[in-house]
Amino acid sequence: MRALVYHGPEQISWDTVADPAIEDPTDAVVRVEATTICGSDLHILRGDLPEVKPGTVLGHEAVGEVVEVGREVHSMAPGDQVIVSSVSACGRCEFCRDGMYGQCRGEGGWILGNLLNGTQAEFVRVPFADYSTRRRPGSLALDDAVLLAEVLPTAYEVGVRNGHVGPGDTVVVVGAGPVGLAAVVIARIYSPRRIIAVDRSPSRLEAAARLGADSAELPGRLIADLAEGPGADVAIEAAGDPDSFILCTRVIRSGGHIANIGTHGKPTTLHLEALWRKNMTISTGQVDTSSLPWLLDLVASGRLHVSQLVSHTFGLSRMEHAYDVFSHGPDTGALKVVLHRE
Amino acid sequence: MRALVYHGPEQISWDTVADPAIEDPTDAVVRVEATTICGSDLHILRGDLPEVKPGTVLGHEAVGEVVEVGREVHSMAPGDQVIVSSVSACGRCEFCRDGMYGQCRGEGGWILGNLLNGTQAEFVRVPFADYSTRRRPGSLALDDAVLLAEVLPTAYEVGVRNGHVGPGDTVVVVGAGPVGLAAVVIARIYSPRRIIAVDRSPSRLEAAARLGADSAELPGRLIADLAEGPGADVAIEAAGDPDSFILCTRVIRSGGHIANIGTHGKPTTLHLEALWRKNMTISTGQVDTSSLPWLLDLVASGRLHVSQLVSHTFGLSRMEHAYDVFSHGPDTGALKVVLHRE
Repeated sequence: MRALVYHGPEQISWDTVADPAIEDPTDAVVRVEATTICGSDLHILRGDLPEVKPGTVLGHEAVGEVVEVGREVHSMAPGDQVIVSSVSACGRCEFCRDGMYGQCRGEGGWILGNLLNGTQAEFVRVPFADYSTRRRPGSLALDDAVLLAEVLPTAYEVGVRNGHVGPGDTVVVVGAGPVGLAAVVIARIYSPRRIIAVDRSPSRLEAAARLGADSAELPGRLIADLAEGPGADVAIEAAGDPDSFILCTRVIRSGGHIANIGTHGKPTTLHLEALWRKNMTISTGQVDTSSLPWLLDLVASGRLHVSQLVSHTFGLSRMEHAYDVFSHGPDTGALKVVLHRE
Repeated sequence: MRALVYHGPEQISWDTVADPAIEDPTDAVVRVEATTICGSDLHILRGDLPEVKPGTVLGHEAVGEVVEVGREVHSMAPGDQVIVSSVSACGRCEFCRDGMYGQCRGEGGWILGNLLNGTQAEFVRVPFADYSTRRRPGSLALDDAVLLAEVLPTAYEVGVRNGHVGPGDTVVVVGAGPVGLAAVVIARIYSPRRIIAVDRSPSRLEAAARLGADSAELPGRLIADLAEGPGADVAIEAAGDPDSFILCTRVIRSGGHIANIGTHGKPTTLHLEALWRKNMTISTGQVDTSSLPWLLDLVASGRLHVSQLVSHTFGLSRMEHAYDVFSHGPDTGALKVVLHRE
């Protein structure tokens, strides 16, 4: 088959590789109908995630058709359409039993396109298939379905839910890339008073306004904007940048919540001398995708509109070009790019 | 009257000052039966809290007898014994209405011995008396009662409760001074599996063992101790030190909680490059003392034993000596020092 192979920092190519096959009885093999590129794939390209070895097929989000299942897979059969979650879950370890699939200690967690070959390919082997996929209803559009593999659960679980967004809140989202914008869209369902998106990129600020942010501002403007009131009830860091995190700590009100979604490659400064008495919380997290079924219902029933998060679609073989488009998103306004089977 | 007056960094003295009087109709004046010294008083002496102006009487914890009340005070009368909370609450602002008295925006919060004259004196004016005191039952020992003014609610609300201590947890308390030791004592009521106290001072580690910690260790030992398992479920920072905070972030397990109690004068480093995917929370906070009635019941009914937190008692006029003893606590083993009316 053909697949996007990582050869080391800044080196990827669309190569011919061996077809995947069932290795464990809990595996399924899925023919990829749609996949996408994630900000963490760009972190891999920059060398920020040294656990990814040269030769690995990248990608951890997909929708596809089951073509083969191991003898211990019970919830699907060849021909079924499934969403492949970015998180694989053994289902048995203490973390999986506690719903924290992202922290799986049973050889699951984020493994696709990280420790194992991933979804940016014609076929993918999905370990722990029963716990790591969700049936795609026929009514769910293909491009919406692929967003449920990671970006929507991440924005919800790690951002909106960890941040305790609630009615009447002032919500700041720092970083208006795809996951930040997904947080803007999902935060809205809790009826906050005001959502402020912050980014350095004018095209991303335009996208934020289009997707429903009440204000879209450059970082330097945010402090002045919030100076009149007590500050933000919730600040969501979706940029993975030390300064963006510090900005969140500067605008949070006493009793507020900072939810870090960003993938960070460097430490930041925590100004405890100002924060120690503020009754605030900071949360971090790797998505569990435990909310996938709930979000799927919201999207499929038309209560959550997410299709504008996809800016470009390509045929699968144009993967290298898609990486180029996606990696220049801050300049060009590209958001999620979805690649379809040809 | 006589009172402990702050004259600037490193300068305090036991002076004759004007007696306090009712200034607002919600005030009470209380004759101090017992007061104590807090770690934050030492921060004031070091100049870490520049809002404290020279000429201020220090102290924010007391038990005493009401001698006069303003015309809008309804819950007490002269002759009543009350615990004076470290936090004054207007009761009307949005934070007080939400139970966050420590964040009061109605001129309350931590004001005694900070923005107003405090409790290290023969008499103290208590603003917002109805919301800022609690009747002392006759059955409650004087020295136990004074611990309810701040150190026990702080250890509970900001440490144990914010840290979500639960049955079976491994709890690390970094800093075995009075507030850290109070956290050790209070954490025990949730039946954790193991409480590990950490301090640089051998005498404080002895006190931790005496007060019920399962292990008492030097900071360098902690990493090795926890290396076998997943890490700590809860880490409570009770030292107010940048390195102690970093130690908490190094030992916390995925999904764990770091509760910062310490008063910090400097920033610390937050290693987001390691923490972003750990599903952990960090909380900070100024005590609200909303738990005072609940803790009072536990102490008065003999379910929570706290008297060992008091290491020394003195007559009120020996206040300067008491500061000397308390400030050398890490070397001498002194914990809470209580000063009694003579």
